[in-house]
Amino acid sequence: MPQATPRQLKLGAFLMSPGHHVAAWRHPDAQADLGRDFAAYARIAQQAEAAQFDALFLADVLAVGDTSESTGARSARSAYFEPLTLLSALAAVTQRIGLIGTASTSFNEPFNLARKFASLDLISHGRAGWNLVTSNTQAEADNFGGSQHLAHDARYERAEEFVDVVRKLWQSWEADAFVYDKASGQYYDPARLHVPRHQGAHFQVKGPLHVAPSPQGHPVVVQAGSSGPGIALAARTAEVVFTAQRTLPEAQAFYRQLKEQAIAYGRHPDDIKVMPGIFPVVAPSRAEAQEKFEALQQLIHPQVGIKLLSDMLGGFDLSGYPPDGPLPPLPLSNGGQSRQQLLIELARRENLSILELARKTAGARGHWQVVGTPADIADQLEAYFREGGADGFNIMPPTLPGGLTDFIDTVLPELRRRNLFRHQYEGRTLRENLGLPTPRPLADTAPAQAVA
Amino acid sequence: MPQATPRQLKLGAFLMSPGHHVAAWRHPDAQADLGRDFAAYARIAQQAEAAQFDALFLADVLAVGDTSESTGARSARSAYFEPLTLLSALAAVTQRIGLIGTASTSFNEPFNLARKFASLDLISHGRAGWNLVTSNTQAEADNFGGSQHLAHDARYERAEEFVDVVRKLWQSWEADAFVYDKASGQYYDPARLHVPRHQGAHFQVKGPLHVAPSPQGHPVVVQAGSSGPGIALAARTAEVVFTAQRTLPEAQAFYRQLKEQAIAYGRHPDDIKVMPGIFPVVAPSRAEAQEKFEALQQLIHPQVGIKLLSDMLGGFDLSGYPPDGPLPPLPLSNGGQSRQQLLIELARRENLSILELARKTAGARGHWQVVGTPADIADQLEAYFREGGADGFNIMPPTLPGGLTDFIDTVLPELRRRNLFRHQYEGRTLRENLGLPTPRPLADTAPAQAVA
Repeated sequence: MPQATPRQLKLGAFLMSPGHHVAAWRHPDAQADLGRDFAAYARIAQQAEAAQFDALFLADVLAVGDTSESTGARSARSAYFEPLTLLSALAAVTQRIGLIGTASTSFNEPFNLARKFASLDLISHGRAGWNLVTSNTQAEADNFGGSQHLAHDARYERAEEFVDVVRKLWQSWEADAFVYDKASGQYYDPARLHVPRHQGAHFQVKGPLHVAPSPQGHPVVVQAGSSGPGIALAARTAEVVFTAQRTLPEAQAFYRQLKEQAIAYGRHPDDIKVMPGIFPVVAPSRAEAQEKFEALQQLIHPQVGIKLLSDMLGGFDLSGYPPDGPLPPLPLSNGGQSRQQLLIELARRENLSILELARKTAGARGHWQVVGTPADIADQLEAYFREGGADGFNIMPPTLPGGLTDFIDTVLPELRRRNLFRHQYEGRTLRENLGLPTPRPLADTAPAQAVA
Repeated sequence: MPQATPRQLKLGAFLMSPGHHVAAWRHPDAQADLGRDFAAYARIAQQAEAAQFDALFLADVLAVGDTSESTGARSARSAYFEPLTLLSALAAVTQRIGLIGTASTSFNEPFNLARKFASLDLISHGRAGWNLVTSNTQAEADNFGGSQHLAHDARYERAEEFVDVVRKLWQSWEADAFVYDKASGQYYDPARLHVPRHQGAHFQVKGPLHVAPSPQGHPVVVQAGSSGPGIALAARTAEVVFTAQRTLPEAQAFYRQLKEQAIAYGRHPDDIKVMPGIFPVVAPSRAEAQEKFEALQQLIHPQVGIKLLSDMLGGFDLSGYPPDGPLPPLPLSNGGQSRQQLLIELARRENLSILELARKTAGARGHWQVVGTPADIADQLEAYFREGGADGFNIMPPTLPGGLTDFIDTVLPELRRRNLFRHQYEGRTLRENLGLPTPRPLADTAPAQAVA
């Protein structure tokens, strides 16, 4: 193992109500109604902040994916807070932790999205992050006219232009543009206003944005795509990449590919942080950890597990196939193609039936799962971190609040003993804590023109 | 005057950064950078809550209306918080006050808007309100592709359907739909889920919404339109109507018309609260109040005043006309037609030049303006309230925080002496405090169907 360096890992607390395990809500360690209890979220956010996590992270989907009696009504994914409103409220009860929310480029307007994240960034004094996703499910399209269900490549074309518009809007005002000179009557300095006047294939947005810049300049851009176009978009524009990588060689290959592409775009490789998700099941002994995991697995209803597997395979409905039989041949879908491919390979490699694959992947929903002692989990994180697989991790507690408390109380002390994680925040903004630079001005925004 | 009854007036605190007077930001009583200071907003919200205001109210526009050096750079309307994020943050630092935010039906998707307000409603335990507006300026259209600048009637057609979609989405789940039965694995009762499946001329939205209902059922629907289609929309769907009425006879006529139309839609007249805006300039004596007002007026730059008048006249540019001459003949615009008409009549009635009209209306931006002692202002509010002109008022402080403090410290005690305003909140939700009923289930939502 290479020698220890002062470089430390970055940690996100990926809060999914009421935990990442598909049956979490039935477990005693989970609060089943967390998705409507703001006070409980506030406690969790404050706990993560006291533990010095870099950021809270909220995923998002623009629909109830499943309203069936057989599986939807048995799932906790039917109701939860909307990320931007929840993060704004959490901004008011925290001081230092980053606030990263997911929002889709498929069913939003760039002006509205840029504005809400800029406002959150200002409310939180520079702690906001936008996790850019594209929307690919029919259930989401059905809430927006039904016809905007875009093909994979077109979704990413729109996303590429969308993020450019958002970044231009975020740089409408220089940091010191507002002078507030009561005596002269000058509110802002017109020379420090840059009107984007964006004209593109998908968007025509004049701007400027009417939100003042935050202490970190603008929100951190986060992405999670790991398909070809997803990696290209991330390499060009993302500052943090969340990713699902289940083995060290996979993680290393992804890490290398992303950093190389970022360099090809003229970026410094340190300016894009790679943070794989990890689903940690931790207990004092391996046997207890395995027992804890099995207790969760036993709470998975077979129909729920197979439905979730169907979703992870891009919406291919497996409910009509024999649960004990193999995966049928799957058509290429519009969904996250790399995840689909990984699952198919996993089933082939381990010779799993549909139900076995469902159980195996439903729990952690296809993410990297580690079951063991605090030292086991720290060993894994350290290996990924030191051996070129990660700059940090997005922690996906199996249950909330219990699973996060377990990680904080047992794994964080172990990471700190190894000098792998901070004792105190380095800075006050999300960028400062992540070690990301202040955004450079975009060259292609025109200076403001006087208009009548 | 009719005999006093236990009926009391409702009060909104209309927070416009940094005050409603067009030159407010230059005045010592105003905090010029309020639009980027969340802590200051939190103090103001807590102050309004301690004073037992029914609600905070935030207006909104989806653009910087003016980026010119001559007037835009002298105006405070260039940067401020986005309402939904700000209200969500304020929800976390208040307990009882309502949180009403403006959002446009012209440049939003109903699913996204319904969801964010539902989430705010849940975060705040039933204190949210949505002020529905349509967008009518070119500056706003330019931030959304430029081509969606809809004509007046078409904007309202879209708004009519938009609010129906939003209300259906808000009623996706019955109050007790979520059972969280850990033992059986039932998360919600499918019989208490109602999937909207809306199919209309402007929108096709399947739903359901994935936010649990709040203690008040769903957010209060607020409107401000006073054109013909605006009144019709309000009479059918609004629960609170903010309006600009500058004389008692005008207010009485509007009040009567709105309640009659509401009755024609099968509604109880008490279920729609009419709350005119008032711009109060208050001081211990009338002379001091007038002096205070003049001090603000002197801070108005002539170019800024004439530009604002142009905007109030639907975007008709007056900068090329002689300031000391009369208003030129104006074409009928797409803007708020009734406001335009009121200004033209005012200029004719009082024989005002452009600059005189600008000065007269720029200060309070065309709203009802009362300059006087606490008793003067209470007299006016009482007259409107008792004589069929209002159920309450939206207080528009000339400066913030100073103007709100003045109102709370001097006018509220006077209103309480007259038993016109509460000493303590009656309820915990915005509906309870406003005396509004819990929403009735909408007849036209189909029960959920089992889907594969």
